[in-house]
Amino acid sequence: MYSFTCDYIEGAHPRILERLAETNLIQEPGYGEDSFTASAKSRIREATGCPSADIFFLTGGTQTNCTVIDGLLRPFEGVIAAATGHIAVHEAGAIEFSGHKVLTLPENSACRDGKIRTADLRAYLEGFYADETWPHMVRPGMVYISFPTEYGTIYSRSELTEIHSVCKDFDIPLYIDGARLGYGLASPAADISLEDLARLCDVFYIGGTKVGALCGEAVVFPRGNAPEHFFTHIKMHGALMAKGRLPGLQFDTLFTDGLYMEISRHAIEMAMQLKAIFTAHGIPFYLDSPTNQQFPILTAGQLAALDGKVAFEIWDRLPEDKFVTRFATSWATTPAALAALDSILP
Amino acid sequence: MYSFTCDYIEGAHPRILERLAETNLIQEPGYGEDSFTASAKSRIREATGCPSADIFFLTGGTQTNCTVIDGLLRPFEGVIAAATGHIAVHEAGAIEFSGHKVLTLPENSACRDGKIRTADLRAYLEGFYADETWPHMVRPGMVYISFPTEYGTIYSRSELTEIHSVCKDFDIPLYIDGARLGYGLASPAADISLEDLARLCDVFYIGGTKVGALCGEAVVFPRGNAPEHFFTHIKMHGALMAKGRLPGLQFDTLFTDGLYMEISRHAIEMAMQLKAIFTAHGIPFYLDSPTNQQFPILTAGQLAALDGKVAFEIWDRLPEDKFVTRFATSWATTPAALAALDSILP
Amino acid sequence: MYSFTCDYIEGAHPRILERLAETNLIQEPGYGEDSFTASAKSRIREATGCPSADIFFLTGGTQTNCTVIDGLLRPFEGVIAAATGHIAVHEAGAIEFSGHKVLTLPENSACRDGKIRTADLRAYLEGFYADETWPHMVRPGMVYISFPTEYGTIYSRSELTEIHSVCKDFDIPLYIDGARLGYGLASPAADISLEDLARLCDVFYIGGTKVGALCGEAVVFPRGNAPEHFFTHIKMHGALMAKGRLPGLQFDTLFTDGLYMEISRHAIEMAMQLKAIFTAHGIPFYLDSPTNQQFPILTAGQLAALDGKVAFEIWDRLPEDKFVTRFATSWATTPAALAALDSILP
Amino acid sequence: MYSFTCDYIEGAHPRILERLAETNLIQEPGYGEDSFTASAKSRIREATGCPSADIFFLTGGTQTNCTVIDGLLRPFEGVIAAATGHIAVHEAGAIEFSGHKVLTLPENSACRDGKIRTADLRAYLEGFYADETWPHMVRPGMVYISFPTEYGTIYSRSELTEIHSVCKDFDIPLYIDGARLGYGLASPAADISLEDLARLCDVFYIGGTKVGALCGEAVVFPRGNAPEHFFTHIKMHGALMAKGRLPGLQFDTLFTDGLYMEISRHAIEMAMQLKAIFTAHGIPFYLDSPTNQQFPILTAGQLAALDGKVAFEIWDRLPEDKFVTRFATSWATTPAALAALDSILP
Repeated sequence: MYSFTCDYIEGAHPRILERLAETNLIQEPGYGEDSFTASAKSRIREATGCPSADIFFLTGGTQTNCTVIDGLLRPFEGVIAAATGHIAVHEAGAIEFSGHKVLTLPENSACRDGKIRTADLRAYLEGFYADETWPHMVRPGMVYISFPTEYGTIYSRSELTEIHSVCKDFDIPLYIDGARLGYGLASPAADISLEDLARLCDVFYIGGTKVGALCGEAVVFPRGNAPEHFFTHIKMHGALMAKGRLPGLQFDTLFTDGLYMEISRHAIEMAMQLKAIFTAHGIPFYLDSPTNQQFPILTAGQLAALDGKVAFEIWDRLPEDKFVTRFATSWATTPAALAALDSILP
Repeated sequence: MYSFTCDYIEGAHPRILERLAETNLIQEPGYGEDSFTASAKSRIREATGCPSADIFFLTGGTQTNCTVIDGLLRPFEGVIAAATGHIAVHEAGAIEFSGHKVLTLPENSACRDGKIRTADLRAYLEGFYADETWPHMVRPGMVYISFPTEYGTIYSRSELTEIHSVCKDFDIPLYIDGARLGYGLASPAADISLEDLARLCDVFYIGGTKVGALCGEAVVFPRGNAPEHFFTHIKMHGALMAKGRLPGLQFDTLFTDGLYMEISRHAIEMAMQLKAIFTAHGIPFYLDSPTNQQFPILTAGQLAALDGKVAFEIWDRLPEDKFVTRFATSWATTPAALAALDSILP
Repeated sequence: MYSFTCDYIEGAHPRILERLAETNLIQEPGYGEDSFTASAKSRIREATGCPSADIFFLTGGTQTNCTVIDGLLRPFEGVIAAATGHIAVHEAGAIEFSGHKVLTLPENSACRDGKIRTADLRAYLEGFYADETWPHMVRPGMVYISFPTEYGTIYSRSELTEIHSVCKDFDIPLYIDGARLGYGLASPAADISLEDLARLCDVFYIGGTKVGALCGEAVVFPRGNAPEHFFTHIKMHGALMAKGRLPGLQFDTLFTDGLYMEISRHAIEMAMQLKAIFTAHGIPFYLDSPTNQQFPILTAGQLAALDGKVAFEIWDRLPEDKFVTRFATSWATTPAALAALDSILP
Repeated sequence: MYSFTCDYIEGAHPRILERLAETNLIQEPGYGEDSFTASAKSRIREATGCPSADIFFLTGGTQTNCTVIDGLLRPFEGVIAAATGHIAVHEAGAIEFSGHKVLTLPENSACRDGKIRTADLRAYLEGFYADETWPHMVRPGMVYISFPTEYGTIYSRSELTEIHSVCKDFDIPLYIDGARLGYGLASPAADISLEDLARLCDVFYIGGTKVGALCGEAVVFPRGNAPEHFFTHIKMHGALMAKGRLPGLQFDTLFTDGLYMEISRHAIEMAMQLKAIFTAHGIPFYLDSPTNQQFPILTAGQLAALDGKVAFEIWDRLPEDKFVTRFATSWATTPAALAALDSILP
């Protein structure tokens, strides 16, 4: 049975495993002082067009979000996010554990798509300081967005530019959660490159776990703007790997010969084919996602037909016995899997 | 140049890399719901003689200590540890980050060896409650020891039994940090087995990172005594791996056919040979370590002689230009490395 | 110029100041071991009909909320509250500072009045556990309501009974923030007594700061159900007063001869007269508040007319240049102040 | 029975109670915006010779320490203190609750008197950065001392100057806990004034609770150097009083016509007489305290003789059935109490 439940159901891109084997017995210092990590940083600096970037490798997404956000905020500050943002919903309170409130923007009922609107953001910030009681409230200290979002959508260049501009007006950093960054940038709908993204925010991370690595996320402060002693901050968060070579080598591999974008493009190609298959079967979508997560709306009958034959996630329940489902492709998705899906769909 | 700086300077035991490659494209659910994790738990339950153990896989040592300790303590409680304990020194305040004080026992000047003495522990606890102001002080809520300690020493069966007995008298759990657990159990000086250790504490972890894995530590609550909702607690600490298959498969491999103890014994054999080499060269030790960390005392001249030829750590400075150094062996140490060391030593 | 901006703009009920003077040089132990505190506890146990209640005196509302909530929750648990709840808005992140998320229920657009609806609460809790990803989310660990609410409204006996019943179904405590408790219980709209309230929740506090005291709030665990070592927990939160005699004596005075309810009734009488005055002037209200906070809707012209003659708060801006304002009465409001207001209102 | 157990066993200086009564019904804004607070700040700025000082009023000592320290440190930083410091011993982990480790300097066995030695401080800081593993350890981010210390001792001008100089060398602030500040400055052994103290540190607080107030401590950032948004930080810590008039009026009174120093001098005069009484009875002291806390060493027989006749604290047990006791005088101590003690002492 093929599974489309998520983009972390296989191991790693084979080239990563090969290099792990090749380098296995080379002795390297721990805690990120190894040569693979140095090389990975170098390649990422080049790929992002940020020669002075500060780069750190952490293990997973929740850990990265919590460590970065807590590293940038003062104790009484919170982070602005969409109500559907990963940090607001699915991180078991990791942000609050480090003492910070997630300040959720109201979802715009017209477009519940995981994105924040510049106008909402500006209204929130202006409203905050217009309220005379603001010193009694959690101060908005940064903005968090995900690219792509939890609903597979992406921000355009002009949207990012505007959001960043609001952040600058209020002197707060913009942080982009790139757990699936490659899948966003490789989308035909994307009008920005990795270099553009690095220019349009203050810190972001390049997701590895969901884009071909066994584990690992690369945090990038594009303009050498990491907070002082961020290494110690990472250690304090329990997020420093002893064998820094593990994420280092993986990112070194992913950023050699454009592998990261190559496998991301493959995932998107598979996603577009998957989309076409559903459409051909007359199945509508919850929204028009241009990335590797697709949200077909299935009837109870269709669910029954797929049961035991293909795996996916049920995302939400709609009226009239309909269900929002999620099918994700990844670097590892095969044409064979899509063909099987096509043959199973009623 | 050979390095003896630590036990995490190579990758992983080759069998682990083989199995990663073999299983790479098998689709498995995330967050520890995969079949490899299930198998690993099963094998660890058998190896520890704890059929009802609760087992969780985390990524690294500091993260594990912080997550377990915060999971067992009430907010106003602290953890008792040796002044040299890893949590008291080298975790950048991870324990305090989660709100808990590390209550260090005074080092016994007669034997500064990383261990806590039962008598000191009992005196501390009795003294605490004898002080009428105790409700104004941090309540001692658990005891932390490392096995082996940061100085390579190990507790005997009778010492562990006594410490656990004091813990029971005061109704607080005993937690054993087993970052190098295999190297402790495989020591000729050890008079306990893994099963014994599981019986003599309330929670411990089996170190993977330093004993043959790329990353990963296995937390064991031997009698099914994990706190409720510990999974969510792990997630909140940013310590839940999306690809749970990674630590799962590694521990499954390490606990197949006794590999974990086999490679631990190899490290100890290498350590004993290393010890003999230093002794043969007339070099004394800071203390008599029975495990994989050895602490030769070198003169400035000897340091100079080794410079650039073999790598190790300088641990402490003694009077008269002498230095406590640390040489660590591991599962990956080769006889060739020892021969080279022998030839280099003046 | 008379001020109606809040209920904490005067000092304390004169009887409190008299007793402070009378007892000033009596030597009493610190930290709540004094005889006044003992007497106050005794009187509160009697007034609440809870002979085995655990009672603690803290200084202010935010501190009390944070200390109680953190005392009852596990680290990964959050507290359910109305979106307008004090802990969600005006405590500068004190709850998050202690590591806990405030889980806000969606405001019911039909009745934005500061109250939570039983149906919404039940739907939230059922929805939480119906979502298979719940172990990745903040666990709802308790329910917070305010009585009266931030909008002056109060819960009826049947509403409280239902909310408490939902809490029991999900095995989580119900906590009532009684910063203005007297003003709620003294309202003609209230159908419960202090004894009823104590029976219908698991912990609540009796507000002193806003009801006649210089400072101080009395936390009541009605059935001797305070968490173990709560005294130490209070100290850790920086919330333990050295001179426990100060809150002790104040609450002893407030609960002697029914003073607390007597002055609360006075405030409500004044509020009802204030309401009548606005009504007589043809001024509508934002909502029908039965307690000491009243929310007249004033036009820009009316604001201008009152400017510099009477003080109050502007709460919110409505379309068409109208403003929600807040006028609060208290134990200290005089008929003269109301007469002045009447004469000033256009 | 007279009590010398502490300096917070009476209410407040009568002038404070008078002014509370006089001003009781004046309407004033909350949260420190009242006129009494403004006046108090003005008077403290004058008394400290710091015209641009930032001043905040909090309720108690533990709360103040936690709020100030957390306000100045980054998450991964700790505070250096004497092992006997209040924050290290008697604050139930309030500092750790806010995430920070207390880094205790080893007690100098030659002089266990509650003070830190400049040489120890410098050695600690130099040793920290000399250890190559420092990025894995809690960074020392500030220095905490108490004046007077928990043992009644005080720092000289030259000691303070040196300590402050070390702090400047390492670019970390010096914080002085002045819970009993008046009793230190009024000591005949003191060679500094309040103005000097303000110049020799970066932040300090003037204790009210133990020096004549019902409650309240005044935090002073002498050179307008409060961290940005410190008001919000205080609120987040649950340390903001709604009726800011209460601490404001008290400090306004204490700093009118030199009352604070006048009552402090009285306490010291009483302490010196008390000291003379013990000496006349041939009773030795644990150390030579020049302030209001005295530590006579009593035998079991002497304890028995005093039992039920005079109250004091037993501080520590010495060999041979001797006991370190603490007798504290205060602004409220009377000659009659001393005469009674004299007559009771064997």
